[in-house]
Amino acid sequence: MRTFRDPALMQRWCRERKLAGRRIALVPTMGFLHEGHLSLIEAAKRRGADEIVVSVFVNPVQFGPKEDYATYPRDERSDLAKCRWAGATAVFLPTPENMYLPRHSTYVNEEDLSKGLCGARRPGHFRGVCTVVAKLFNLTHPDFAVFGQKDYQQAQVIRRMVRDLNFDLDVVVAPIVREDTGLAKSSRNTYLTEEERDRATAISKGLANFRSVAKLRRDLERAGLKVDYVECVDAGTLEPRKKPGKGCCVLVAAYCGKTRLIDNVVL
Amino acid sequence: MRTFRDPALMQRWCRERKLAGRRIALVPTMGFLHEGHLSLIEAAKRRGADEIVVSVFVNPVQFGPKEDYATYPRDERSDLAKCRWAGATAVFLPTPENMYLPRHSTYVNEEDLSKGLCGARRPGHFRGVCTVVAKLFNLTHPDFAVFGQKDYQQAQVIRRMVRDLNFDLDVVVAPIVREDTGLAKSSRNTYLTEEERDRATAISKGLANFRSVAKLRRDLERAGLKVDYVECVDAGTLEPRKKPGKGCCVLVAAYCGKTRLIDNVVL
Repeated sequence: MRTFRDPALMQRWCRERKLAGRRIALVPTMGFLHEGHLSLIEAAKRRGADEIVVSVFVNPVQFGPKEDYATYPRDERSDLAKCRWAGATAVFLPTPENMYLPRHSTYVNEEDLSKGLCGARRPGHFRGVCTVVAKLFNLTHPDFAVFGQKDYQQAQVIRRMVRDLNFDLDVVVAPIVREDTGLAKSSRNTYLTEEERDRATAISKGLANFRSVAKLRRDLERAGLKVDYVECVDAGTLEPRKKPGKGCCVLVAAYCGKTRLIDNVVL
Repeated sequence: MRTFRDPALMQRWCRERKLAGRRIALVPTMGFLHEGHLSLIEAAKRRGADEIVVSVFVNPVQFGPKEDYATYPRDERSDLAKCRWAGATAVFLPTPENMYLPRHSTYVNEEDLSKGLCGARRPGHFRGVCTVVAKLFNLTHPDFAVFGQKDYQQAQVIRRMVRDLNFDLDVVVAPIVREDTGLAKSSRNTYLTEEERDRATAISKGLANFRSVAKLRRDLERAGLKVDYVECVDAGTLEPRKKPGKGCCVLVAAYCGKTRLIDNVVL
């Protein structure tokens, strides 16, 4: 397994692999890898990638000024071991300074699907996501890129960006991986106390037994969570749907203590 | 010479050429080709391109609501003949509908170099330029792309975009091609009456004999042109420079009748 820190070297390697006819998969992550991430690498393998490039980069541009950029968990050594174990062929670990050069001034904005849900609560978040993902696409020349369904809105926004900007690659969305309790795997789960981790299961339980937005919201509040949003939307357009049913996605963002958790289910 | 109208077919052809080891040059144009454009194709040849893809697309997104999108001159048959004659190996002529699908919602914004000069007078112009050029890059996988120095600010904005988003290609900027009178070649020159064409030469004459911004502005006004801007800026950062000198670029935008003309000189 190769590791790259310099974007120019990462790009050259991928360019050469690509010209050699190798099928490249990109798995973009912010590191602190868990089984959710490893399932993305598995998905890349199953789809026949010859090279699986995992990027590990906590992207400052997608964090708001009051968010957890500084404290976001990091463990490079463990990430490298997990990537190797899971079958990645290259890991890309750039620094923020190498990714955002002095006078960086170009951003990619998706202006439709990014508006609601997390986009409404985290201004600039998807601008940061689209920008860094566009950069990673250009640096790694993937035939396809794998994202997790846990970040449902993000996956839809990326799909739209790929379509609108004609990126020559496929977007693959892999299912949510959960703890035995149902809690969606997330690097941020590490912030949770044992008691919070217990209460947080109300989210996945509520989604699994979804009846109505009002009921789900009530259940979350009863479990002591602070609801950021509970919404039922069209799974493709992310437009609000009054009547939950086939083709809908129900999305939750809620604070458990100080930790913001998200989860969703497609009906 | 191949012609493509469908973006997907253009992309497939370029992908295959690229994987076959061919060096691809992109020459993005809005058509109504003149010797300025043909010099870009020449520059691509000289730099050793195996495939020269000329795109001909009047990009609606870079025109303001009161600008000349509808009346911008078009002559597809002549453009194809000129491309063939100049040595293009492929011409890409998409429709606006194929370039901007329903619910198109992703745009590329350069937020520094785009702010002043034409960017200040044409809100949204460089957003449209960056978006369509990013799309063309992804559709044609060029090793390098050739732009004209006549659109000096555009060339700098594109360079920055390529750097910031890590597009894996070089930006080549080719010198301005002029009429015998000095007038910079432009598709919009076709709007000029004979009398206007004569008066318009004050721009190139003023730039060739540049002394000061004030004097140049006076000379343009004396020739009956309506000055949009005359600015002396740092050629790299586009920041205003009080003292003209080496490393400066002097840029002019002026109306000759109803036609907006631009020109520049690097000192």
